[in-house]
Amino acid sequence: MRKLYVFDTTLRDGEQSLGITLNVKEKLEIGHQLVKLGVDIIEAGFPASSPGDMESVRTMAKELKGVTICGLTRAVTQDIDICAEALRKAEYPRIHTGIGVSPIHMAKKLRLTPDQVVEQAVFAVKYAKKFMSDVEFYAEDAFRSDPEFLTRVIKEVISAGATVVNLPDTVGYANPWEYGELIGYVIKNVENIDQAIVSVHCHNDLGMATANSLAGIKAGAGQVEGTINGIGERAGNTSLEEVIMSIYTRRDGYGVGSNINTREISATSRLVSRITGVTVPDHKAIVGANAFMHASGIHQDGVLKDRETYEIIQPETIGVPQNLISLSARSGRHALQHCLEELGYKVEGAQLDEVYQRFLKLADLKKEVFDQDLYVLMGDSETTGNSIVLKSMSIATSGVQMATATVILEIEGTTITDAACGNGPVNALFNTIDRITGNIATLEDFTLKSVTRSSEALGEATVKLRYEDGRLVVGKGFSTDVIEASAKAYLNALEKRNPHSELEAEG
Amino acid sequence: MRKLYVFDTTLRDGEQSLGITLNVKEKLEIGHQLVKLGVDIIEAGFPASSPGDMESVRTMAKELKGVTICGLTRAVTQDIDICAEALRKAEYPRIHTGIGVSPIHMAKKLRLTPDQVVEQAVFAVKYAKKFMSDVEFYAEDAFRSDPEFLTRVIKEVISAGATVVNLPDTVGYANPWEYGELIGYVIKNVENIDQAIVSVHCHNDLGMATANSLAGIKAGAGQVEGTINGIGERAGNTSLEEVIMSIYTRRDGYGVGSNINTREISATSRLVSRITGVTVPDHKAIVGANAFMHASGIHQDGVLKDRETYEIIQPETIGVPQNLISLSARSGRHALQHCLEELGYKVEGAQLDEVYQRFLKLADLKKEVFDQDLYVLMGDSETTGNSIVLKSMSIATSGVQMATATVILEIEGTTITDAACGNGPVNALFNTIDRITGNIATLEDFTLKSVTRSSEALGEATVKLRYEDGRLVVGKGFSTDVIEASAKAYLNALEKRNPHSELEAEG
Repeated sequence: MRKLYVFDTTLRDGEQSLGITLNVKEKLEIGHQLVKLGVDIIEAGFPASSPGDMESVRTMAKELKGVTICGLTRAVTQDIDICAEALRKAEYPRIHTGIGVSPIHMAKKLRLTPDQVVEQAVFAVKYAKKFMSDVEFYAEDAFRSDPEFLTRVIKEVISAGATVVNLPDTVGYANPWEYGELIGYVIKNVENIDQAIVSVHCHNDLGMATANSLAGIKAGAGQVEGTINGIGERAGNTSLEEVIMSIYTRRDGYGVGSNINTREISATSRLVSRITGVTVPDHKAIVGANAFMHASGIHQDGVLKDRETYEIIQPETIGVPQNLISLSARSGRHALQHCLEELGYKVEGAQLDEVYQRFLKLADLKKEVFDQDLYVLMGDSETTGNSIVLKSMSIATSGVQMATATVILEIEGTTITDAACGNGPVNALFNTIDRITGNIATLEDFTLKSVTRSSEALGEATVKLRYEDGRLVVGKGFSTDVIEASAKAYLNALEKRNPHSELEAEG
Repeated sequence: MRKLYVFDTTLRDGEQSLGITLNVKEKLEIGHQLVKLGVDIIEAGFPASSPGDMESVRTMAKELKGVTICGLTRAVTQDIDICAEALRKAEYPRIHTGIGVSPIHMAKKLRLTPDQVVEQAVFAVKYAKKFMSDVEFYAEDAFRSDPEFLTRVIKEVISAGATVVNLPDTVGYANPWEYGELIGYVIKNVENIDQAIVSVHCHNDLGMATANSLAGIKAGAGQVEGTINGIGERAGNTSLEEVIMSIYTRRDGYGVGSNINTREISATSRLVSRITGVTVPDHKAIVGANAFMHASGIHQDGVLKDRETYEIIQPETIGVPQNLISLSARSGRHALQHCLEELGYKVEGAQLDEVYQRFLKLADLKKEVFDQDLYVLMGDSETTGNSIVLKSMSIATSGVQMATATVILEIEGTTITDAACGNGPVNALFNTIDRITGNIATLEDFTLKSVTRSSEALGEATVKLRYEDGRLVVGKGFSTDVIEASAKAYLNALEKRNPHSELEAEG
């Protein structure tokens, strides 16, 4: 069985394209989970695009072991210099450089002749090879290129030392039989192709990224690129979890195997969703909340008679927790620890005490504590210990369209109380926080979700703030009181104002 | 060019499988929009499954003209009798009957021998033919069936009079080349296949429903079945908008054309999302908010040089509104009307006056009124004139985890004031409404979203209430005050308590 290399670009094509700025701590958290999931390559960023991206890639290169850390560059020396520097401490570094090869990209975007493109491609690969042995070349918009020209570019960059050649469907224009054919054509017609791994990188504009990637793999590609939950520019990238589970479910059909631990898929999906603020739709394949739910009577009946009548993947395979213990205010520390472990959280000692105290408070408010509540409890835990603390808030409305909020915040040890008005309670609350903190970023998005099954729901709020320099910051907050959750989310976003300061100091 | 028939099952496989109960008025609203979109067949429900479904199908059959109205049945006389009765007033009625044909469905679910299955299939088609000429047969789990047995079943049901034969990938197990091969095999090996249209019906469990459907169409299928936004059981059905736009974008590759008016895609997607309460993810192909958004610097630069560098579909093609007029409190009635028309709303006379008054109230609260606000304004308009009216609400909180709400409701002319406490403002509010209305349904889901770009956001709340009989009802509410929006959504759900009463009276 051939080995399929899994190349995760959640933190580059996923993160960058959403206009979201994750801080280094958040990226590292995703990075560690990707290592647990078993991906082979993590594309950590595009170092030349910003000092923040440079710093993230540098930190990931230093911290994540047993995995290839990759950085993106254009085919220019400056980008490659910065990328090589960012990757200096990586155990297995890889530069991912490339250039557009379709007629429209060459003529309209690059304004270069095909010969000039070949020259620049070869130059970039050779230049990158001075820093490290592992160099991947991307032939941007390969799917819309002239196949004959494409084989020429690929042959030349492999001669120049490229170890992986990536043939993306940049605009998501392909269908599976065409994309498979292109991959097959390149493999057949590039004489030195055996010296490199062919990689597939698809976009989902027509809803076919997964099928296209699989068609490419079937045609001989040895690496697949994608993101968790399919996040990314426009309609997103290939959903890695879909490709992985297709290969797992249809082991007979592809002749490839990967290092992925499928039982980490569910946890990885939830983590990426929580940190990026991009919600996984309920009917998303593999990782959606409904993916394994049989709603109609006929289907339920069938599944009860034999699971396989309507179920092709068992939830356990991707690590969807099957919690049999029911937690309540009477549950002990050990039961809580056990349930948290089932969900992938390792909590002990003082942290367990702290979580248990908050668990009891929550259990007092709710008859039964579900897995979902525990995720929220742990998410909350991770946002505590911050420099801005919500000490108290009260709200008064009288009549429609008029509300007053009073908020007490503790900012770096100092307690500040103030009030402001607004169209409604949440607006008044945010106005009050702005007044206390001097915030001038714009509220770009605000969503609130009750995340539990019981009527005493636990609220999860997401706030996106846009700063003057264009940066978008995501804040999350949790509480049984949805308004309090909103306040916490807003404060969480404010705390991320300066995402890189912490780690730059130690870098 | 072959004609591709577009079969929409949003109101059957989509609605039913989500456990959502839409009332007849809501289904009709979707039905009328599907007619505008230009689908050929609307599968309106499964009449034998409940009196409500029966009534919906009957109403749609009576009200929607110029389109085939289809009802689902199992292969039993009782189902077919009820379905035929429901379709009695349809201009073009179709019964969709069928039975499982895979070894696992026959042995485990049906407990029938293959011969018995053929017999029952033929019997059902013949029985349905007594009521109408247009009868579609579904070979459930066709993809996992024995191809030789499948061709036998298909040949027999066509001989019995089936006009359409549907070969579903019921469990979403196929990949494109296999599914295309199966369709091709049936077309080649069923001698009377020219007397029927072959239909593809795929599920998205491995993320490939669109690619599989297209592979089937390429192999000769003449009908595609799916839902708007891909809603449906588990990971959902084929997204019709993805299939339609693939065929539109790649006209060269499929050799088929449809009656679809692509410019209605965006409006249809939004309507289905609003009515079902199933949010369209931002990076959903074709209809997601980001589908046409170029976030990264390199892509933006490319698109500015030439749209086609990164854009394969122009937003106008699917009817994404391109509003150039900026609306504010100074805008006149005519400007508002123009902008509403751009968004697909025809508003005149007294309704325009009413909408304009609410527009002015909104414009007073917001500096600028965007398209998104107008959708909300119109959505709000459609939920007014109800039997429960929110006259006033006020909220007081003091300290964390304790809130009191006071609400004045007018219920069928009577004003009732009451108060209740809760964990937070929203919980207190819902408790107060429960106390006034005597509601005992459980709050199953609650989400809140700010839907505009400005900081004075307009909130859209969605509430799902689960009744004792298992029915799930979705309520929507809109307001600049997100708490007020929540109250309105809750009341909207309560009003739908008895969804079919209104039309049953006149039926």
